[in-house]
Amino acid sequence: MKTINVGLLGFGTIGTGVAKLLLTNSALIADKVGTPVVLKKIADLDVTTDRGIELSPGLLTTNAMELLDDPEIAVVVELIGGYEPAKSFVLRAIENGKHVVTANKALLALHGEEIYAAAARKGVEVLFEAAVGGGIPVISAIKGNMAANNFGSVFGILNGTCNYILTCMTQEGADFATVLHRAQQLGYAEADPTFDVEGIDTAHKLALLVSLCFGTRVNFADIYTEGISSISAVDIKFARDFGYKIKLLAIGKRDGDLVEARVHPTMIPVSYPLADVDGVFNAIRLTGDFVGPVMLSGRGAGMEPTASAVLGDIIDISRNLMAGINRRCAPLSFLDGSVATLKIKPMGEIESKYYLRFSAVDRPSVLAKISGVLGAHNISIESMVQTARMIGGSVPIVIMTHEAREMDVQKALQEIDTFDIITDQSRYIRIEDNLE
Amino acid sequence: MKTINVGLLGFGTIGTGVAKLLLTNSALIADKVGTPVVLKKIADLDVTTDRGIELSPGLLTTNAMELLDDPEIAVVVELIGGYEPAKSFVLRAIENGKHVVTANKALLALHGEEIYAAAARKGVEVLFEAAVGGGIPVISAIKGNMAANNFGSVFGILNGTCNYILTCMTQEGADFATVLHRAQQLGYAEADPTFDVEGIDTAHKLALLVSLCFGTRVNFADIYTEGISSISAVDIKFARDFGYKIKLLAIGKRDGDLVEARVHPTMIPVSYPLADVDGVFNAIRLTGDFVGPVMLSGRGAGMEPTASAVLGDIIDISRNLMAGINRRCAPLSFLDGSVATLKIKPMGEIESKYYLRFSAVDRPSVLAKISGVLGAHNISIESMVQTARMIGGSVPIVIMTHEAREMDVQKALQEIDTFDIITDQSRYIRIEDNLE
Repeated sequence: MKTINVGLLGFGTIGTGVAKLLLTNSALIADKVGTPVVLKKIADLDVTTDRGIELSPGLLTTNAMELLDDPEIAVVVELIGGYEPAKSFVLRAIENGKHVVTANKALLALHGEEIYAAAARKGVEVLFEAAVGGGIPVISAIKGNMAANNFGSVFGILNGTCNYILTCMTQEGADFATVLHRAQQLGYAEADPTFDVEGIDTAHKLALLVSLCFGTRVNFADIYTEGISSISAVDIKFARDFGYKIKLLAIGKRDGDLVEARVHPTMIPVSYPLADVDGVFNAIRLTGDFVGPVMLSGRGAGMEPTASAVLGDIIDISRNLMAGINRRCAPLSFLDGSVATLKIKPMGEIESKYYLRFSAVDRPSVLAKISGVLGAHNISIESMVQTARMIGGSVPIVIMTHEAREMDVQKALQEIDTFDIITDQSRYIRIEDNLE
Repeated sequence: MKTINVGLLGFGTIGTGVAKLLLTNSALIADKVGTPVVLKKIADLDVTTDRGIELSPGLLTTNAMELLDDPEIAVVVELIGGYEPAKSFVLRAIENGKHVVTANKALLALHGEEIYAAAARKGVEVLFEAAVGGGIPVISAIKGNMAANNFGSVFGILNGTCNYILTCMTQEGADFATVLHRAQQLGYAEADPTFDVEGIDTAHKLALLVSLCFGTRVNFADIYTEGISSISAVDIKFARDFGYKIKLLAIGKRDGDLVEARVHPTMIPVSYPLADVDGVFNAIRLTGDFVGPVMLSGRGAGMEPTASAVLGDIIDISRNLMAGINRRCAPLSFLDGSVATLKIKPMGEIESKYYLRFSAVDRPSVLAKISGVLGAHNISIESMVQTARMIGGSVPIVIMTHEAREMDVQKALQEIDTFDIITDQSRYIRIEDNLE
């Protein structure tokens, strides 16, 4: 019986997890595939660090070509991350007729189309379950058993760093900077946390989910992306008073010939299952026209859960190879000719409920002026709170709106912020209380 | 391009949903499969009832053989339920080289081995995502992307009727009989609810999950099965006081060369995500050695979610056929030769924490006698409540134990129930507060 040989590009945290899983559960994997799945070569620039795994001599190389050009390697796993040399390596693997498994959401969000087209030409699979939600099998669920559904929406908590920070802020009443600093010390946040806390990583993942759910190309630059760095403890406190939690939510919605695709801090009711997804856990909630709402949650990152997702993809390809076929399913599950190009709805056009917080001087006319401007922009007020509490010499006024158009809200806030009764920039957080 | 023809056995609720989905989303399905998937024949004894679907003339027949022996039909969907004639039909379909999709958990839980063996001989697929958790794609996740994991445990809320009843009892403080009656009127419970409320349906589903997670045959008769009909409003009230909710839980655990497989009302902490799964929703929580804990939830029954799962399986088979292969994966994902025969741990041997409720006369010696018997059986008390509240002339004494052996608890309760200070049969509910 033939062996299935795997080559690993990148021997960092996830790569180490993949190697560990392939070695630890090799018998189990062989029992499910029908033949051994063998780690034949690992390429990494660092060949000296001890990863705590015993490797056969010669397995580790600094030269990726040794692996990409090895005719005995059937599956290349790309875990380098970033755009280059990852992209060139992936394209070369495909050119050489190899199947590709990757966890690289940034690469696919920006260059997926080129990579999928190359894979279609060569008749190989490109799988990327590990790119979204760590070990949560959401991509295979969308492409696989839920494939008969037209999806209406997808909501995701997709970045463990942000969710950890927001969870701590919520539980402790602490400020963003304080919690970020601790997360960095604990290794939950990078030294430069921009990619995570500004929502870019979440947006990359959303781009993939939107493509898969709605069968469309996504122009990544059109995804509105707002991070959590401007969320303050006072907003979290008010959110709780109104029965909400603040989460960095990836939101995808089908809207006729348009899609919504946006990432921003979002208030969701505490009674929603997504509100209970705390710490480094991730979750995805999808709604299909037949299946209804389905939620999947689990560890969204980390060596071992991500390795589980990578191995799942390797097993998928291995089963094809054992059945004597190469390609069985297109990367987005829609046949390549059936992928649409739906436009992303401009952010100004979206409709949402809003939480608005104004900092104002403590004077009787303030409320009338604010509500006058809101009314003039077709923004109607659902509820309002003005506390006696002073923050830096100002009183906070919090308004929850009914559904309003983003553009109207932005214009109203700009106008209000010019008033001399307003002492600080007004804040807003979008609310999702209808996840259907 | 060839068409993939599907035959439907059974045109009840789920069958109608499948027909509706195949007709409604036919373009979407063709876009993902690469060819039309066509409903060629439906067999049902009732050919007169209007299901609200327009069918071509001649599509509906009372003769299953027309479908089972039609060489143009590639996939047979069995939605008759029960053991016969479902089993004979499934075996005949397999014998004729057809792939089988079924939602019949009872059939597979009792006769799965025979059916899987027949499918292996003929090289066809037997898929059954719709048998567990309605539209929740849990079976394909276990067989697919999470396949590289050794699973340690699986917990499930798998019966919508029971969960609906327990949810109403919890929210309203109502009694079992009252809520069951209403559930029957609303169509959420059958006229004869035994199958659901006594846990048999849940046990069938657990048998499948245990087979899939642990790669083992399961002797269905060895699954301990206890329903919810003896749960009273007072137990639900006490559970809440201690921070728990009562759910009918399917529990599967790997324990060395044994497995635990049991279905019974279970107290779980209100802080657990499973505790939030209310009403007719289902959820499954699995723990793999690499992926860690993963939870999937959604609508566990109903025409449309179940049809989504059936269609997912049909699409899976269709992709194989389009790639030119027949069988790609064994029904349990373990190769047929690799399925083990792990014994189910005898119920008396399991260890659990327990909620115990005694009805006793209001006399000072009572507590000493009860705790004496518990101590003599190695059952240690974690906490205890005795309320002044009288129930039918007795006082309830509630004891939460540390981990104890089932057999010891049963013996202790038998002994205590012989005392004349005890006025009613003592109650117990097992507690799970460590879902790892």
